[in-house]
Amino acid sequence: MRMINVGIIGFGTIGNGVVKVLKSKRSFLKDIVVELIGGVRPAKDIILEALREGKHVVTANKALLSESGYQIFNLANTLGLAVGFEASVGGGIPIIKSLKEGFVANRIDLIYGIINGTSNFILSKMAEEGYGFKEALKTAQAKGYAEKDPSLDIDGIDSRHKLSILALLGFGIPSKAEEIYTEGIRDIEPADIQYAREAGYSIKLLAIAKRAGDSLELRVHPTLIPKAHLLADVNGVYNAIFVKGDLIGENLFFGEGAGASPTSSAVVSDIVTIAKDISRGGRIEKSIAFRKEVKEIKKMDEVRMRFYIRFSAIDKPGVLAKISGILGHHRISIASVSQKESKAGRIVPVVMMTHEAKEHDMVMALKEIDRLSVVKKRTVRIRVEG
Amino acid sequence: MRMINVGIIGFGTIGNGVVKVLKSKRSFLKDIVVELIGGVRPAKDIILEALREGKHVVTANKALLSESGYQIFNLANTLGLAVGFEASVGGGIPIIKSLKEGFVANRIDLIYGIINGTSNFILSKMAEEGYGFKEALKTAQAKGYAEKDPSLDIDGIDSRHKLSILALLGFGIPSKAEEIYTEGIRDIEPADIQYAREAGYSIKLLAIAKRAGDSLELRVHPTLIPKAHLLADVNGVYNAIFVKGDLIGENLFFGEGAGASPTSSAVVSDIVTIAKDISRGGRIEKSIAFRKEVKEIKKMDEVRMRFYIRFSAIDKPGVLAKISGILGHHRISIASVSQKESKAGRIVPVVMMTHEAKEHDMVMALKEIDRLSVVKKRTVRIRVEG
Repeated sequence: MRMINVGIIGFGTIGNGVVKVLKSKRSFLKDIVVELIGGVRPAKDIILEALREGKHVVTANKALLSESGYQIFNLANTLGLAVGFEASVGGGIPIIKSLKEGFVANRIDLIYGIINGTSNFILSKMAEEGYGFKEALKTAQAKGYAEKDPSLDIDGIDSRHKLSILALLGFGIPSKAEEIYTEGIRDIEPADIQYAREAGYSIKLLAIAKRAGDSLELRVHPTLIPKAHLLADVNGVYNAIFVKGDLIGENLFFGEGAGASPTSSAVVSDIVTIAKDISRGGRIEKSIAFRKEVKEIKKMDEVRMRFYIRFSAIDKPGVLAKISGILGHHRISIASVSQKESKAGRIVPVVMMTHEAKEHDMVMALKEIDRLSVVKKRTVRIRVEG
Repeated sequence: MRMINVGIIGFGTIGNGVVKVLKSKRSFLKDIVVELIGGVRPAKDIILEALREGKHVVTANKALLSESGYQIFNLANTLGLAVGFEASVGGGIPIIKSLKEGFVANRIDLIYGIINGTSNFILSKMAEEGYGFKEALKTAQAKGYAEKDPSLDIDGIDSRHKLSILALLGFGIPSKAEEIYTEGIRDIEPADIQYAREAGYSIKLLAIAKRAGDSLELRVHPTLIPKAHLLADVNGVYNAIFVKGDLIGENLFFGEGAGASPTSSAVVSDIVTIAKDISRGGRIEKSIAFRKEVKEIKKMDEVRMRFYIRFSAIDKPGVLAKISGILGHHRISIASVSQKESKAGRIVPVVMMTHEAKEHDMVMALKEIDRLSVVKKRTVRIRVEG
């Protein structure tokens, strides 16, 4: 039996978890660099140097891979070395291996899901307990599910990092941060969760990679999804990812998306895969096979979706006609309207569901509507899928 | 580039599907035997002969693998050949690869789920449309989801085959047909679906492999699961499999469990994996690594579960006391009772939910109860999980 050396860089919760697992499995593995420090620097230099020194790499660093994955994978492929990155998306869920190997025969059409457990925990608390955003965030922080500075999670940045990796793997296209529309959950109000529920929807923070011809929609935003959809029942810190392919139809993966144990499971799975490849002899399996499946990333302005919109308007005759008129002028047609209260002369919430409309048209229409003297607060707009 | 020959035996729907996919992917693959004929004979001889001739094998044959998997995998391991069997369980769902590789660091504690789409379609129709079993079966047959002779699916045999493979993979233990308690869905009545729903449960045909100390529970039967459980929302011909491991917690896989396209996706994934192994040189990855994780399969009589029971008893004073007395005598305690109608002197349904009780105790209690003169029909008993 060959000895394979494993060096582990970064000894936080996950690093400790991995070492514990490797020890408990009485593993014979030594030599492979495991990078678990997070953040782009100095992780990038460490990984590039390790590869140049002929070492295989296992990493859970989604920020780095979303920024420099294309470069790192290309270098590894050129050098005939492996980069394992199962732990970078979905914790212990084997989504990377499934996209790379299990679904190899498929043309992937759509990948979407809940890939940030912190945001999902907060939205679940708001839905279940009627908490406001801040109260739910505090609960998440008290339970250790959210950082003291929670921006990475609640502003959708972590989801964007992971979506970028999934898009590279599923559609063969690298993406820059500014090419992925990213909106977090800070502005979600209990009222919207309530009104969405009355209309038969749950609100979830979704990351979406959707093929549209030879371009790809890439976006992260709060989304209304129908109650009957499996994602609507994914609560707490869990992750859930749908993959739609031409042969498999829709496949769902569900599990714990973070935490020391699930992440360790993924890291060790990568280490074992590479170690087996080494001990079997022969060439190493490529980390990623680049297929140029789509030509470009679609501009968000051009994306078509349905919308939930909530106006805070003065309750007086003619207001609804005025709002509808502006929407119509911008080619947006209304599927349903419901005025939630009635108090003549006072501000009341009016909730609309639209048919499919272009993002750009909606932006322009809302700009115009929010300038009306009868509209007293910024209009809330949440996208709808499913 | 080495040429790898692929021979395909069995040219039904799936065989055609695989050939179509391989052609459309302009695959360079030739030489690997793909067995898609189904049934134990002559498939077993073909596979054993192919291995002895030094050929790798890909098969979707769950009946054969459940009967002779241990022998086939051992022979392949000895000869350094691969047996791909991703398509044998869950269609296009990458459950085999995930158990073998993705979860390699985990001690698996529990695998359970809906692994027969036909039965799930029938139960869904009964729940959604109020159909009786026969009517729902006819609908399934008209849609091509059930065979003319549907026994393999509706009597739980297909689920048993697949469970046997999952148990071999997840717990390292081969099982004989008679060691897996198997009960199908023929006797499920609309009334039970209705009463279960009133109590907050759905009825699904589950296959369950549950570690209990160093023994393993293996069983296939209709099961009440709470409405809030993700499996309760899996309807139609879909499959869904939960895997619980010490590191990953609970992971769910959901997708189309049968049909030409999803099955082809799995077969081609196996072919590509083996072809890559061959073309990289070096030794071949073992089809299965046997770990003796549990010592024995637990006898069904010894398994402890909660139960739903429906009595058809004469509505008169003292009947409930008599029934409760017999249950108590057999160490079965009652969690709730609900008498569904009241018609003095007539037969009425009485539904009970019990606390955890031993299968053997329940069998003995029901024998005694069904002999009572006030009990007019055989008592219905459905197990509860979750």
